[in-house]
Amino acid sequence: MSEIAIVGAGMMGSALCWPLSDNRQSIRLVGTFLDEDIIRSCQTTGIHPKLQRHLPQRVVPYSYTQMKEALTGVDFIVSGVSSFGVDWFARTTGPFLQPEIPVIAVTKGLEDQPDGDLQILPVATNNRLPDEKKGKISLNAIGGPCISHELAARRQTAVVFCGQDYRVLEKLRGIFAADYYHIRLSTDVTGVEVCAALKNAYAMGVSLAMGMMDRSGADGLANMYNPQAALFGQSCLEMRRLLEITQGGVENVSWLPGAGDLFVTVFGGRTMRLGRLLGQGFSFKEAREQLAGETMESVEIITRVARALPKLAARGVTRLEYFPFLLHLDQIINHGQVVNIPWNKFYLDA
Amino acid sequence: MSEIAIVGAGMMGSALCWPLSDNRQSIRLVGTFLDEDIIRSCQTTGIHPKLQRHLPQRVVPYSYTQMKEALTGVDFIVSGVSSFGVDWFARTTGPFLQPEIPVIAVTKGLEDQPDGDLQILPVATNNRLPDEKKGKISLNAIGGPCISHELAARRQTAVVFCGQDYRVLEKLRGIFAADYYHIRLSTDVTGVEVCAALKNAYAMGVSLAMGMMDRSGADGLANMYNPQAALFGQSCLEMRRLLEITQGGVENVSWLPGAGDLFVTVFGGRTMRLGRLLGQGFSFKEAREQLAGETMESVEIITRVARALPKLAARGVTRLEYFPFLLHLDQIINHGQVVNIPWNKFYLDA
Repeated sequence: MSEIAIVGAGMMGSALCWPLSDNRQSIRLVGTFLDEDIIRSCQTTGIHPKLQRHLPQRVVPYSYTQMKEALTGVDFIVSGVSSFGVDWFARTTGPFLQPEIPVIAVTKGLEDQPDGDLQILPVATNNRLPDEKKGKISLNAIGGPCISHELAARRQTAVVFCGQDYRVLEKLRGIFAADYYHIRLSTDVTGVEVCAALKNAYAMGVSLAMGMMDRSGADGLANMYNPQAALFGQSCLEMRRLLEITQGGVENVSWLPGAGDLFVTVFGGRTMRLGRLLGQGFSFKEAREQLAGETMESVEIITRVARALPKLAARGVTRLEYFPFLLHLDQIINHGQVVNIPWNKFYLDA
Repeated sequence: MSEIAIVGAGMMGSALCWPLSDNRQSIRLVGTFLDEDIIRSCQTTGIHPKLQRHLPQRVVPYSYTQMKEALTGVDFIVSGVSSFGVDWFARTTGPFLQPEIPVIAVTKGLEDQPDGDLQILPVATNNRLPDEKKGKISLNAIGGPCISHELAARRQTAVVFCGQDYRVLEKLRGIFAADYYHIRLSTDVTGVEVCAALKNAYAMGVSLAMGMMDRSGADGLANMYNPQAALFGQSCLEMRRLLEITQGGVENVSWLPGAGDLFVTVFGGRTMRLGRLLGQGFSFKEAREQLAGETMESVEIITRVARALPKLAARGVTRLEYFPFLLHLDQIINHGQVVNIPWNKFYLDA
């Protein structure tokens, strides 16, 4: 039995309580400063208000104000923060991190650098650690298709744990694997992480087709899969090119981290709801208001990649024509454009 | 304006009437011997009974008994038969085919050879032509995500035309392209055709998860996307390996022909209904009875590939362990097994 601290009590971090608990691990669920209501509910009723479930056995909820106590004596740390919380995570937990305590993150994102380079979050996290910890902490991550509600319902789920050290990954798998939580290992951290981030951007894009159907009328048909699939195909193609730029393995597109995770995210919740509203014809401002209070990582990743691409193109690393879909999503979100899929620019040199 | 004959008045062949008609082409829709009722309805009411729509302008329906008349003076021929009709198509139209009349097929399938080799349908069709025509006819094909109902509804649809001669493909694109029917070209006929065939097999597999949900109870959640996505990821992985075996380009998995077409087929009709019934726990025999009268290409392709794989493995071309999903589907269909997803064998050496 190991002691695990999950830092960040949002849906995805908290959902990991289920396989960990079923493996008889001892779990400390530590909220961020944004999670005080969640932690209070967990402490008083045992119910996680966002997952709307009783936490399983062996989970002890902690407030962020108890960070030192929560992180003392643990064997593994899970980072359950969103991409907006990377800075907070590094600053707050940094002093407690140790080389022999592996960290594994569910956080999805990419950070664009001034020169256009796209940095994966394990690298971004490392750069924000206290100087004496930099390069010394084992920072791993989880990719692949997983809707948190479904994991908490113990639905069959297959993910990828990635990190630099295969032995650490094997240890982590031993802690987390359950008969419904299937874990494959990869040392291609860049490949898995780039897919994990991009799927949010492109799932928003694919779900535009749902809104386009709502707007055009269903025409007697239950749904609109040809346009969704056409956008899905272009999404996979652009992901492949972004892997080439970042030197992640392109084969990640064609299993769990790429196509698999994109598939689940298209149906998965707030990202889809945003895309659907935009596809219906709402402006981004209007759609954003309807989804007030939701963390929108899709918006962040679209904005960051679209900001990086012209710089990368200017450096000769890629061509802007390779990314008509992502650049259109950026136009919708950041430049007031209406949805008008640039079909004729798609599938170039596929 | 060109004269086009579509041979086979099933849903997919007939749906091509819409972009062709919108392009002001002159279309002859020729039924097979199985399509007499369809052609009679088209001739008397103008309604295609399977698509449940009025045929567009410029379509003249022909019975198979009028084949000679129907194929005389045409510029292009579409093969709209199913994989079960390849033999009939070659035998019946063979005498009328000419080198200067390109053929393009919507047929999806692979034929396993005695030594385990998997033959794509343009090759299989060529081999069945009259001897004096063998190797002389331009046999092209259509891959990518397209539900026929949606194409007939003029929904945005993106497909891939593949063939050996790029100039012929460009000519075909000029005939078919519409502002809702986007056509990309590929000379990797094997890559596109292998994906087109396999997506039926794996879509049946992914939709097992829908039936598994029905059986287990929805547990308050609307659907079961984690398991579907996990199966989707394994499907893409096995498709990649089958492309390696057949020497098609593996990049086909990560755009329209592979992931895109698999996506649409999971939601697309009879293949999904079969998988769902099997996932609910019905035996293949029971499920087949509930779907009596439906052409089941998924069953055919699973059976053929599963028959080929042990031979290919024995020849050292691949390893059986690479295909746990497809082999399980074969067990369900041909050997009376119940659905029991072999999760622990999945994602091997991804």
